[in-house]
Amino acid sequence: MAMNGLMQERQLLVSGLLVNAARWHGDTAVVSRLVDRTVLQLDYRRIEQRARQLANALASLGLSRGATIGTLAWNTHRHLEIYYAVPGSGMVCHTINPRLFYEQISYIARHGEDLLMFLDVSFIDTALRLTRDCPGIRHWIVLGGAPELEAARALPGAIGYEDFIARASDQFAWPEFPEQTAASLCYTSGTTGDPKGVLYSHRSSVLHSYAIALPDAFGFSACDTLLPACSMYHANAWAVPYAAPMVGAKLVLPGPHLDGESLYELIESEGVTISLGVPTVWLALAQYLEKTGRRLNSLKRVVIGGAAVPLALLREYRDVHGVEIRQLWGMTETSPVGTTAALKGKHARNNVDSVDLVRTTQGRTVFGIDMKITGEDGSALPHDGKAFGNLKVRGWWVTERYFKADKSALDDEGWFHTGDVSTIDADGYMRITDRSKDVIKSGGEWISSIDLENAAVGHPAVAEAAVIGIAHEKWTERPLLILVLKEGSSVTRAQMLEFLSDKVAKWWLPDDVVVVNEIPHTATGKILKTKLREQFRGHKCAAI
Amino acid sequence: MAMNGLMQERQLLVSGLLVNAARWHGDTAVVSRLVDRTVLQLDYRRIEQRARQLANALASLGLSRGATIGTLAWNTHRHLEIYYAVPGSGMVCHTINPRLFYEQISYIARHGEDLLMFLDVSFIDTALRLTRDCPGIRHWIVLGGAPELEAARALPGAIGYEDFIARASDQFAWPEFPEQTAASLCYTSGTTGDPKGVLYSHRSSVLHSYAIALPDAFGFSACDTLLPACSMYHANAWAVPYAAPMVGAKLVLPGPHLDGESLYELIESEGVTISLGVPTVWLALAQYLEKTGRRLNSLKRVVIGGAAVPLALLREYRDVHGVEIRQLWGMTETSPVGTTAALKGKHARNNVDSVDLVRTTQGRTVFGIDMKITGEDGSALPHDGKAFGNLKVRGWWVTERYFKADKSALDDEGWFHTGDVSTIDADGYMRITDRSKDVIKSGGEWISSIDLENAAVGHPAVAEAAVIGIAHEKWTERPLLILVLKEGSSVTRAQMLEFLSDKVAKWWLPDDVVVVNEIPHTATGKILKTKLREQFRGHKCAAI
Repeated sequence: MAMNGLMQERQLLVSGLLVNAARWHGDTAVVSRLVDRTVLQLDYRRIEQRARQLANALASLGLSRGATIGTLAWNTHRHLEIYYAVPGSGMVCHTINPRLFYEQISYIARHGEDLLMFLDVSFIDTALRLTRDCPGIRHWIVLGGAPELEAARALPGAIGYEDFIARASDQFAWPEFPEQTAASLCYTSGTTGDPKGVLYSHRSSVLHSYAIALPDAFGFSACDTLLPACSMYHANAWAVPYAAPMVGAKLVLPGPHLDGESLYELIESEGVTISLGVPTVWLALAQYLEKTGRRLNSLKRVVIGGAAVPLALLREYRDVHGVEIRQLWGMTETSPVGTTAALKGKHARNNVDSVDLVRTTQGRTVFGIDMKITGEDGSALPHDGKAFGNLKVRGWWVTERYFKADKSALDDEGWFHTGDVSTIDADGYMRITDRSKDVIKSGGEWISSIDLENAAVGHPAVAEAAVIGIAHEKWTERPLLILVLKEGSSVTRAQMLEFLSDKVAKWWLPDDVVVVNEIPHTATGKILKTKLREQFRGHKCAAI
Repeated sequence: MAMNGLMQERQLLVSGLLVNAARWHGDTAVVSRLVDRTVLQLDYRRIEQRARQLANALASLGLSRGATIGTLAWNTHRHLEIYYAVPGSGMVCHTINPRLFYEQISYIARHGEDLLMFLDVSFIDTALRLTRDCPGIRHWIVLGGAPELEAARALPGAIGYEDFIARASDQFAWPEFPEQTAASLCYTSGTTGDPKGVLYSHRSSVLHSYAIALPDAFGFSACDTLLPACSMYHANAWAVPYAAPMVGAKLVLPGPHLDGESLYELIESEGVTISLGVPTVWLALAQYLEKTGRRLNSLKRVVIGGAAVPLALLREYRDVHGVEIRQLWGMTETSPVGTTAALKGKHARNNVDSVDLVRTTQGRTVFGIDMKITGEDGSALPHDGKAFGNLKVRGWWVTERYFKADKSALDDEGWFHTGDVSTIDADGYMRITDRSKDVIKSGGEWISSIDLENAAVGHPAVAEAAVIGIAHEKWTERPLLILVLKEGSSVTRAQMLEFLSDKVAKWWLPDDVVVVNEIPHTATGKILKTKLREQFRGHKCAAI
């Protein structure tokens, strides 16, 4: 008969992360740049105290365990306090991405059954519309003091955050409850259908925090100063607000100011050592640095996710500024970290160019995540860096089912289908080649639309490229290349196919090339291929 | 009403650590130096396969979940396989410290109810005595092949390990079971009473592995080569055999050969980057290096625990070899990691000497552990680096009760009393000043026996010093200093007190100084103060 171990059975709770920071790193700074560009400096002791006040203030409204609390907010110290006061009280912190279309935002706030909304003044217009469409939201708290409340005077019954917590006592004992309890809620911004909610638990959040702080993930220590340029309104800012207090790192929250100059100033003035965000942020910073001739002095690592990192960017940061760029792959459904492109011991023997290729993959699994790629029949494909198939993952911080879904999101063996198509090489490095719904199924083989697009944008006349599959009698589908050209440029179909001919396999060459004025995008900047497919349904290819 | 998160509810199991390594770091080396000095190189793929064979072999003996399996073994690849095959099958891996007195070993094997014993040939004599005293041990497996089995021919019915697993299939699916299940058992080697068993769970082992691999704990990555010079027979070699496969680090297991020359050769030939062990090992290596003029080329960090690190040793490794020494405090009951003396960001501004003082503390908590110090009345003492009191800890990998104990080892608030006396400073760094039972209670105040001993050994004539409390009518207890002198040296009582007078508070000065030929020690080298107290019971101090 199996017997149980005799260790302490304490629960993994999010509140423990901040309590740890307040107790053992109490004077470590939390710096916050607000909407009005004011830079405020607090510390973990003060943040935890204010979070206790906020917890009491929420309880005074009659809100209790299981309540969903919405946020429309930037990366600031107040959002951080909400990140702890809400789950720490057994409620659910529901971060809403304000960059979504309004219809999606109002759907999300209704579907999440938000009872209270915290908002930055930037989002007052959205809030005003929500008062009409989401009558379930009973309380509106404007992040700030008297000036911010004044700016929100059109919002009926709004309360100022500083007033709200000032009235509350800081005498509050963080409650203990089961670690499976929901902690936070974030909706995916899919390109099709309604957004779907991912409901993170305390357990998944704490385990994920341990994993992402490891040397081969983000590598966080108490000697670091962290600047999450990834948003706290999406996928919990990659869980940096959890992992930073876990290790006692100094935290710098940049508010909405992510342009090159603002970011540079904050990095230098606060001595940031590690920053994180999507490629566009780092491209903008690189341009600013090139233009001004400035240098990054304290930064040692940038973690980039959300889209593939161009090799040139990686080399520029390393060679000019001595900054390591480390890629991450993940999604809302994976908390979000699945893989990171950290090197292995064996790479120490390799030359720089081959190591750079490893760094441009989406990386290898962080412990806690398992992954595999499968073919159309569901069988596992080899890890040879060539075979590409549907990417599936499982682990402690992977979604089991979406919020309010009546069935599991997993297959019979517990794997979550990411919707990505990828390769995995012999060392375990994964490279995304496409989205499952975008890959072109041609004669029983797959063609990567992304690889074709990347090859096409290499042509000097091309500003943007999209590849979709069009129906084909014999081959099921064949690729169609859709181009937006740079102003004043031109390219013929024949020239484009000639250009591609030494870059992709012959049978991958598009059946046709069309030029358009504009390619449609989602609210978050992804190419809207569903719309392109509608537009080009029944497209007849020019005779070859 | 609280709701649960909707993340995957997979269990935290030890087997997952090795499966992870085999799947994602399959060709990463596991190097093993055997008793006969042979150096063998395997990899994680092979280790996991052999662990599956071992799991089948154990099942073929009719052993099943909950069975306790003993080991008397060095740090080798076979011991590593046992570390996974046994808990991975739902059995308990009971590592026995062969350096204990035989009576303790036989008590431990009986109390643990071991059904099978794995042993290295070094321990055949012990095994022979155990066959008589522990009839519950039904199977004896000698680690090795034909030569080792031949060496063990006196042991009736012994099986050779390689034979044992060669007969078994490698078709084995690691079972899933609740993470609270017991994984391993280790007995403390107390100075009083019978040894007490600590029963680790799968959950505590996996959580502890995450924590110790963090940058501010041991800082393990897949770029590292790890050499645990701490023993796999005690406190799971500080859990390095778990954390190494978790991150995919190369693992170098040194067998019994821990002398300076053997350790140096292995570190250099295998490119070890991080090593771990007790101070004596690193003192011996430092002496070897000084004698031979050799340099450490690959090593970047040494983690030292088990006893305080002398400042001189720390400086020698850093200044001569560029190696960081990082202290760790912990005990069998804490899995073992409680604190590590990693720096904080604020120390970057400090000078080298003040940073060195931080490094000589026992360190600050690793996330997952909380600690406090309390006075005699149980109230918490300030974190000022001066007040010293009973050190208490709690956390996910702290013992709740000892094996077979009928009551909890914790106080009403869930704290475990470490039996250590310490200070904690404002930055959270803890410094052990004494053992609770050794601290001298004089007039309601405490005197640290360790501080007095450290001061006394600073005298050039002193080889070893011990301080105990002797009964005193007015002050309850007063310190007695007991000395062993270096050959040919001498010191008078008055000279010793004079020497100490500017090193400790006046009221700490011992009431008497006695010189003895020998101070008694435990099997693991600790001063046996119980015996000294018996010896000096009723001691009359010389008139002052």
